[in-house]
Amino acid sequence: VKGANPMIETGPIPTVDEPTLIKGKIEQATQIMNELDLDLWLTFTSEIGDGGADPVYPMIFGERDVPGGVLVMSRAGDRVSIVGGLDVAVPPATGIWTDVINSAGDPAGCLATLVRRFDPGRIAINYSLTDRKADGLSHGQFLWLQSALAGTRYAAALVSAEELIRRLRGRKSPEEVGRIREAVRQTESIFAELGRFIRAGRTGREMYDFTLREVRRRGLETAWSVDHCPIVTVGPVAPIGHTPPGTTVLQPGWTLQVDFGVKVNGFCADMQRMWYCRAPGETGVPAEVERLFRTVRRGVDVVIENIRPGVPTWHPAEAVRGLLPEAGYPEFTYGVGHSLGRATHDGAPNLGTKDDGRPSGTIEPGNVLTAEGLETLLEGRGWISLEDDVLVTATGNEVLSTQQREMMVV
Amino acid sequence: VKGANPMIETGPIPTVDEPTLIKGKIEQATQIMNELDLDLWLTFTSEIGDGGADPVYPMIFGERDVPGGVLVMSRAGDRVSIVGGLDVAVPPATGIWTDVINSAGDPAGCLATLVRRFDPGRIAINYSLTDRKADGLSHGQFLWLQSALAGTRYAAALVSAEELIRRLRGRKSPEEVGRIREAVRQTESIFAELGRFIRAGRTGREMYDFTLREVRRRGLETAWSVDHCPIVTVGPVAPIGHTPPGTTVLQPGWTLQVDFGVKVNGFCADMQRMWYCRAPGETGVPAEVERLFRTVRRGVDVVIENIRPGVPTWHPAEAVRGLLPEAGYPEFTYGVGHSLGRATHDGAPNLGTKDDGRPSGTIEPGNVLTAEGLETLLEGRGWISLEDDVLVTATGNEVLSTQQREMMVV
Repeated sequence: VKGANPMIETGPIPTVDEPTLIKGKIEQATQIMNELDLDLWLTFTSEIGDGGADPVYPMIFGERDVPGGVLVMSRAGDRVSIVGGLDVAVPPATGIWTDVINSAGDPAGCLATLVRRFDPGRIAINYSLTDRKADGLSHGQFLWLQSALAGTRYAAALVSAEELIRRLRGRKSPEEVGRIREAVRQTESIFAELGRFIRAGRTGREMYDFTLREVRRRGLETAWSVDHCPIVTVGPVAPIGHTPPGTTVLQPGWTLQVDFGVKVNGFCADMQRMWYCRAPGETGVPAEVERLFRTVRRGVDVVIENIRPGVPTWHPAEAVRGLLPEAGYPEFTYGVGHSLGRATHDGAPNLGTKDDGRPSGTIEPGNVLTAEGLETLLEGRGWISLEDDVLVTATGNEVLSTQQREMMVV
Repeated sequence: VKGANPMIETGPIPTVDEPTLIKGKIEQATQIMNELDLDLWLTFTSEIGDGGADPVYPMIFGERDVPGGVLVMSRAGDRVSIVGGLDVAVPPATGIWTDVINSAGDPAGCLATLVRRFDPGRIAINYSLTDRKADGLSHGQFLWLQSALAGTRYAAALVSAEELIRRLRGRKSPEEVGRIREAVRQTESIFAELGRFIRAGRTGREMYDFTLREVRRRGLETAWSVDHCPIVTVGPVAPIGHTPPGTTVLQPGWTLQVDFGVKVNGFCADMQRMWYCRAPGETGVPAEVERLFRTVRRGVDVVIENIRPGVPTWHPAEAVRGLLPEAGYPEFTYGVGHSLGRATHDGAPNLGTKDDGRPSGTIEPGNVLTAEGLETLLEGRGWISLEDDVLVTATGNEVLSTQQREMMVV
């Protein structure tokens, strides 16, 4: 373990919240507040240990426990934190939240006074009916806020920060992209190790355990909850989707699909890779398996070609519509990707379908998106699907993952 | 590392959500719903990766990512989950949430139908103005819920689950207590390592780094956010409170206070320990340091003696009032402890003061509480304080930590 990851025992303590990372997001947020004509933005501080934190909070403040405080940003670039007396040393340690108000037992009064000072027309708060990453305000906090501003005209100035958060979270900074690149690299390296472990006779659970041990040996985390990361879909009998590991044994003549990613320095990768388990006497991949693999590959390539700035988020799903039926397979009617970042499902933008009832938007430079979907069952063989990670650039995109262009054979 | 923690590379994958742990909490929840005359209890599922999860969710479902679902419990013991089609395999994997409804794009309709089936008089939902651990419902989810139940008489049946969560979180099951015991044991072991590292000339940052490396070497996490865990208070110049590590150098004649805990299998310890750094020629601890140490020790002992079932949560703070002034030190006017569990600040019950404006309650068997406070600055020497972890039993309490009865000397 020492050899694999020397940072575990020596050197500075790595955290997700280095000042440059936070500073970049703060600068973006100020710019976006001006784009959207938002005067003030309120985010409650949290203790992040076991849920209940606003997903925005670590992005603009780092993974720092502060109970019962409020972070206040203005469109002019002011950043003021209101925190309790025990916590006054925590915000300045960010290097960014240096303007601290000790709430001294009256956070509501402090907030009302501060809001009056800024005299905002529109105050953004973190709630949303459609994007959980923009819905970090608890109902209790909403009631508290209403009561803190009661009797002032600011109570009527509260608006949803949904679009602010959508843009802020979606426009990855260079440092964020760098961390996602490293997560992709580590995920590919673990996929390579897994490829040497896969063979007929092994269960899904064994392949899951092997992968997780490799994650832990490197001192990393899984990109989504460990109960189903990796997802190991063995042959035609395992259900596709978010499935915990099972006892199905890989049989010759079956495919194996693995959906997996790691989180490195707080940022995620999410990829799908395919293997074929040869039957006795076979030298290659059966024609029917090969043909579906190539069709899915072409489909994901079409999705990727259609990920570019300025197009609606439903555009890639529309572009690939019809491709599977033309090759004689059933249509795929779901979305074809999602944002990737601090979380595997990183909020909007989401590559949904045109009519899925979810709010659409436009793909922007700096978005990092998965390109996936089209998963198709081949009777007697198994599921075939692929997933790559894509960075939107000023003019098109860059595929961050090394695309699988041939079925891997074991 | 292999030697220190073989689980990192071999054996089953450890998770916080073993079925017995969840099952214990589910059984408690059903009982408490009957105590409180609550017919139905709704908790939204979450993706737990980067905040935004309901703190209750991992306790009753495990650390499993499920977006956009609802967990429904009845006072009769029914447990039904409503989840999307990709996620239908996740709830049964708990071994407990085996009754699954595929929401098939209409979770609101599914929920309304299910609620009608139970026909509840009172439906508990997770919001609170005073306890963040009982306030996991987001404002967006609240609006969604109102809309899902609009036009039915159940919209008016929604009540706060605050007291349900207070009791459920507060009454630690034997398995939960076992995990806290292990966290206390590991914390004490790391304190022992740190004691061999402390010496005059070292900075707070160096002692912080040493402690964190020891946490990582054992494959553990800190009990609260790593930016200020451990808190290392060096001599009389460092501020007391939640402070990130600083560059102050430990001087002969100063005290050193460390506030620290680890999280083991999802459960926390939280303890404070004291050292004195001898000046040249000194053989023991100066009388003034010794006298304050003994006074604080006696104060924490009084807190512990007054932690017992059936007394109000403010009783321990009242009991110790006056002890410091009687010995000639300034009064301590804050709370003297908090619940400990999945989080270091584990929600109610909280050992606050009689008049702090926070809701009180009664200490119950199964509560695990810290006993602390009374921190006092000795001019020219530094801060002195202590903290122990205490389990409330049927008749009194059991101190889980090994109490520090002598100042440690370096």
